[in-house]
Amino acid sequence: MTIIEELKTISSELTDLHHIMALLQWDQEVMMPSRGAGERASQMATLSAEIHRKEVSPVLGELLDKVEDKLTDYSKVDRGLVRVMRRRYDQSTKLPEDFVTSMTRLTSEALHVWVEARKEADFSRFQPFLEKIVKMSREQVEFLGYSHEPYDGLLDLYEEGLTASYVQEMFAGLIGPLTDLLKTAMANPRQELVLEKDFEQDQQVRFAEMVLEKIGYDFSRGRQDVSTHPFSTTLGHHDRRVTNRYSPRSIEFIFSAMHEGGHGMYEQGIAQSLQHSCLDSGISLGIHESQSRLWENIIGRGRPFWCHFYPELQNLFPEHLTGLTVENFVRAINVVNPGCIRVEADEVTYNLHVMIRFELERALIGGAITVAELPDAWNSMYSKYLNVEVDSDANGVLQDIHWAHGSFGYFPTYTIGNLAAAQIWNTYTTQVPDYEKIIETGRLDEIREWLVGNIYQHGSVYTPRELITKVTGEPLSYEYFVAYLRERQQGNL
Amino acid sequence: MTIIEELKTISSELTDLHHIMALLQWDQEVMMPSRGAGERASQMATLSAEIHRKEVSPVLGELLDKVEDKLTDYSKVDRGLVRVMRRRYDQSTKLPEDFVTSMTRLTSEALHVWVEARKEADFSRFQPFLEKIVKMSREQVEFLGYSHEPYDGLLDLYEEGLTASYVQEMFAGLIGPLTDLLKTAMANPRQELVLEKDFEQDQQVRFAEMVLEKIGYDFSRGRQDVSTHPFSTTLGHHDRRVTNRYSPRSIEFIFSAMHEGGHGMYEQGIAQSLQHSCLDSGISLGIHESQSRLWENIIGRGRPFWCHFYPELQNLFPEHLTGLTVENFVRAINVVNPGCIRVEADEVTYNLHVMIRFELERALIGGAITVAELPDAWNSMYSKYLNVEVDSDANGVLQDIHWAHGSFGYFPTYTIGNLAAAQIWNTYTTQVPDYEKIIETGRLDEIREWLVGNIYQHGSVYTPRELITKVTGEPLSYEYFVAYLRERQQGNL
Repeated sequence: MTIIEELKTISSELTDLHHIMALLQWDQEVMMPSRGAGERASQMATLSAEIHRKEVSPVLGELLDKVEDKLTDYSKVDRGLVRVMRRRYDQSTKLPEDFVTSMTRLTSEALHVWVEARKEADFSRFQPFLEKIVKMSREQVEFLGYSHEPYDGLLDLYEEGLTASYVQEMFAGLIGPLTDLLKTAMANPRQELVLEKDFEQDQQVRFAEMVLEKIGYDFSRGRQDVSTHPFSTTLGHHDRRVTNRYSPRSIEFIFSAMHEGGHGMYEQGIAQSLQHSCLDSGISLGIHESQSRLWENIIGRGRPFWCHFYPELQNLFPEHLTGLTVENFVRAINVVNPGCIRVEADEVTYNLHVMIRFELERALIGGAITVAELPDAWNSMYSKYLNVEVDSDANGVLQDIHWAHGSFGYFPTYTIGNLAAAQIWNTYTTQVPDYEKIIETGRLDEIREWLVGNIYQHGSVYTPRELITKVTGEPLSYEYFVAYLRERQQGNL
Repeated sequence: MTIIEELKTISSELTDLHHIMALLQWDQEVMMPSRGAGERASQMATLSAEIHRKEVSPVLGELLDKVEDKLTDYSKVDRGLVRVMRRRYDQSTKLPEDFVTSMTRLTSEALHVWVEARKEADFSRFQPFLEKIVKMSREQVEFLGYSHEPYDGLLDLYEEGLTASYVQEMFAGLIGPLTDLLKTAMANPRQELVLEKDFEQDQQVRFAEMVLEKIGYDFSRGRQDVSTHPFSTTLGHHDRRVTNRYSPRSIEFIFSAMHEGGHGMYEQGIAQSLQHSCLDSGISLGIHESQSRLWENIIGRGRPFWCHFYPELQNLFPEHLTGLTVENFVRAINVVNPGCIRVEADEVTYNLHVMIRFELERALIGGAITVAELPDAWNSMYSKYLNVEVDSDANGVLQDIHWAHGSFGYFPTYTIGNLAAAQIWNTYTTQVPDYEKIIETGRLDEIREWLVGNIYQHGSVYTPRELITKVTGEPLSYEYFVAYLRERQQGNL
């Protein structure tokens, strides 16, 4: 075997093992009987140990060293493979084993404490754990390395190459337009969608499946089930599953179906030639999120989409929606309404929630504020940027699971996703000017095909930055997103 | 760590990995999207390789050698652990790796060929593969060792300690009474159950779940899903799942629910102290089958059971069963009707199907007949013992998957199961004389509790032989089964 073939064999085995891990997790969330949890945790720990053993193998390190000596000899795809394997190898080997064990134990405890603290709206219970997590996150980047400031090392974990100064610039550009849009929306309040009868869950499921089929999610290579929190996951090249949740008085299930469907279709669209390798996966959290939000928001909250689907929705739920025109329906699903909770936020305010977290994380990691000062800092930023008063830490600083998980640096990928979605969409609509007609006539699969050709098929071959430039001809910018939001709020989309 | 603790650690890891494998298989049969099959096979191969590596580890061999030197120092449970680990270690290490690879490749090919050969009723296509499988099975026992004749080594793979001479004696005792019962039944033909309307599948599922709950299958530690062939599987100490299948004009789903429920409850009843070890599993195929058939046949086809459940069945399917008394219903589900197909056979003729296979397997492995002579031998035995003419090899020698799998020695465990079920039931009814009332009043959980105390809890601590003697006070005999069949056919049960 050549060196690259040896690397491919290792990558193939690791891919199998990671997919097996994904099945253990999927089953746990979706199928496992209630009392199976304890032993499932043990199974995951056993499998993780097997995976880790393979990931830190010195043989792998030597192969990478050798192949990197003459990288230019290889194809773009093989260079991508080496890049991703090197990245994972470094992430796995640079952290000492006892550090990883301590971090796992800490975050596992912190997660339980966070659940309790949030339930009782008592930040003081969580505070000592968060202090340790911040401390260990700083140690973590010292092991991993970083470009300019420690926080860069954490951002890079979730979005290859992302830096704090870049994110800062992004939000500096966004803050003005977002604040203006928020003011305008507040000055012209709109009617939200109010449903006075329950939707039958079976009908919700059928409608969600119909939408997923129409946008091109392939059920012969996936499935949709029910879970507490919607998610998507990959169990194999031809096995990319999504989940959804349903509540009787909400049409939120449609948007989460499209959101998870977007993730699932991205993965389903990866070229078969990348099967059995670490390239057979979406490239980053930000790019992944761009594909879920493109379908959920840009397409799924637009007038052309509902010109096609609204009659079917009305048909399925006649008692709920009679008398509501499609125009008013689309206005209602695009209401701007600032609140405390990120996951309930509209498209305009959502990125302000993210910006607040970014600034606080950077300050915490950089030492500019302490964990003790966090709740006050949080509340005053919500007051300043969103003009909302946080009534309780449960709805404030304790609302997200990420910090309890030790996932500092994760949040900005959500905004990266929104920006990338708008920029990619701009490229698409420039290339395909009659896109509105395509959507109105339900030919959504044509959009998916464009995305397959331009984004999905590449899997992890290109870095997020390379991919954006390759597709849109320029680096990621906030301007397309701002332009999109303005048009949407003016009712032009 | 002491030696026994080291062994327990290894057994715990292997148990986790085997349970993960069971999840991969369960998901494949029940949930996986159609196109996931190829990569799932690769995942299973990767995990198998990991498991195999651990199972043949020389460290494990050394630990077993050491601990066996002073086995009497240990508890019954620890001795059971060592016994089962030694058995598996020997089975894994005695076969050379290239032999295992060749056998896997051969049976994988043979399976495809068998499917085609059966479809076209063309034994000649399968014949060369079966010849190779017989040859390799003979080699296999030379590696593994055997007590008196080579076929013993194959029987022992599926039922620890089983020998051909024992099975021969068992059938020698059975053949007379079974033939008599068959003649009597033929002389007094009965009406089979004929359903003229379709059952709604949803209602079938609900009825099956209700029955499973009543007999004591714990849904917080299991679940029931749909699959092509019903099966039961263990994914963890608290995760023992069953599947079922439904067809619109049949009540077969009730018997398969009880059959798989019997397997599932056996596993659910294993003592929690055996969790995370190779003892956390039913002891053998025969004992497992005794528990499925006890519930499916002895209880599930009895008058007391239907005294309780028949009104509910009539209630659920009023159009199908009005006018049919419970007595006639019970007679109809116990009709004796000899045919070509084993899996469709009634309780009287079933063991004649098994006997034919046993005699043919023993003759093949011993060299008394050739594979070429097999179809004729098969057909003449069906004519002789069951008085049926086999119209096509598809319904004859090609009907079972076992030989294509390379599973020589498996079939006799079905009859062992029937015999053990009747013998255990005899012990139960002797100890609990008002058992009919217990069943009639639906207190089936009391029966399960007795089985937990006497059988289920022990997992794999005792050998099949030890367990039968422990529970019933004597070795396995065919007489209880014959007595049970006579009573059942006379309508006394």
